[in-house]
Amino acid sequence: MYKKIDIGKKILIANEEYALKNSRLLAEQKKLCLNMISSPGSGKTTILVRTINELKNKLKIGVIEGDIRTDLDAQRIRATNAPAIQIETEGSCHLSAAQVSGALDKLGVSELDLIFIENVGNLVCPSAFELGENGKVVVLSVAEGDDKPIKYPGIFAKSKVLLINKIDMLQTGVQDDFDVERVKTDARRLNKGIEIFEISAKTGEGMKNWCDWLIKAAKKLS
Amino acid sequence: MYKKIDIGKKILIANEEYALKNSRLLAEQKKLCLNMISSPGSGKTTILVRTINELKNKLKIGVIEGDIRTDLDAQRIRATNAPAIQIETEGSCHLSAAQVSGALDKLGVSELDLIFIENVGNLVCPSAFELGENGKVVVLSVAEGDDKPIKYPGIFAKSKVLLINKIDMLQTGVQDDFDVERVKTDARRLNKGIEIFEISAKTGEGMKNWCDWLIKAAKKLS
Repeated sequence: MYKKIDIGKKILIANEEYALKNSRLLAEQKKLCLNMISSPGSGKTTILVRTINELKNKLKIGVIEGDIRTDLDAQRIRATNAPAIQIETEGSCHLSAAQVSGALDKLGVSELDLIFIENVGNLVCPSAFELGENGKVVVLSVAEGDDKPIKYPGIFAKSKVLLINKIDMLQTGVQDDFDVERVKTDARRLNKGIEIFEISAKTGEGMKNWCDWLIKAAKKLS
Repeated sequence: MYKKIDIGKKILIANEEYALKNSRLLAEQKKLCLNMISSPGSGKTTILVRTINELKNKLKIGVIEGDIRTDLDAQRIRATNAPAIQIETEGSCHLSAAQVSGALDKLGVSELDLIFIENVGNLVCPSAFELGENGKVVVLSVAEGDDKPIKYPGIFAKSKVLLINKIDMLQTGVQDDFDVERVKTDARRLNKGIEIFEISAKTGEGMKNWCDWLIKAAKKLS
């Protein structure tokens, strides 16, 4: 078993080297890069599409899409006219910094204000692999239940932002057992400074606060 | 990189040895054991609680719960009076056959008709680790979207059963862009023989078909 740990460490160290390369590139170019992490189906792509459309005249956004299979998500992003690079991980459960390095080159960072990385849908593994981003954004959909911060603490502890998505479901009564305050309290217990936005990427509710935060964060770097 | 693959293979081979041990134990005792896999929040525990209650006088059910942190799920199972063993993986993204082997010993298989293993919430990694079970049950909640079989094909290709959960959301119109037929077609393209049940563990809709299938599957082995 000790061999596993040694090799595991080597893989993480190799990943860190590329992560450092990516973060240097982003720092030199003064670009904001956010790594979006969530379970499958929490609405990452829908949030990105809506965010790109709402910020159309304010920020130039590019997207790196990670999926096990298909380029469906990149197609959805390109339909907004934003550039998108698809990485198919072919079974791997997370994006690596090396994959992101190649994608950043293709995307043409200098032309952009903000780069989103949409990681593979997985609340566990992607949190262990730094990609060189400025921050992680964890998305939790109301449909997933309010016990997720305490059951999957790693990603909530590491994220700069928590987006609580699909809040329209609360109003319909479909998801009446989801306690928003519990999620906020548990997330802040793990991570005092985490920014939390309640949104519905479907109806648009709450998107303005999130978009305003993005504008401010991107401006701070440029 | 070749080293990673070698060690990865060794880990998988070590896992297979325990998986074989588990499957021999289950075969000797003629017990049905199902490995439930899904994203976080698709409703695995709620399905188990409802299934145990509906089958109370028909099958003796025990549960092995896998979570990164907390024993909340085992507590929910024990509230039904069914026995439950909690495994906390402390960061690991899947259950291993060795962990399950220990839990099967503690659970007391001989007293039971049916053992459920609720894996860590993750649609990717658990599908690579055989636990010695008789079959995998993949759960997809309507809230996660209908593109999941083609985006995460591995688990849909390997499962004996697909439970499409939270179908009550279809009727409310909250999730009106979820095409059940698309999911069924895509899942059957990956896996011709997959059994598919549409259920709502919340309202109870469709649970009878799933429970009848469980009774038949358990009887076939005993």
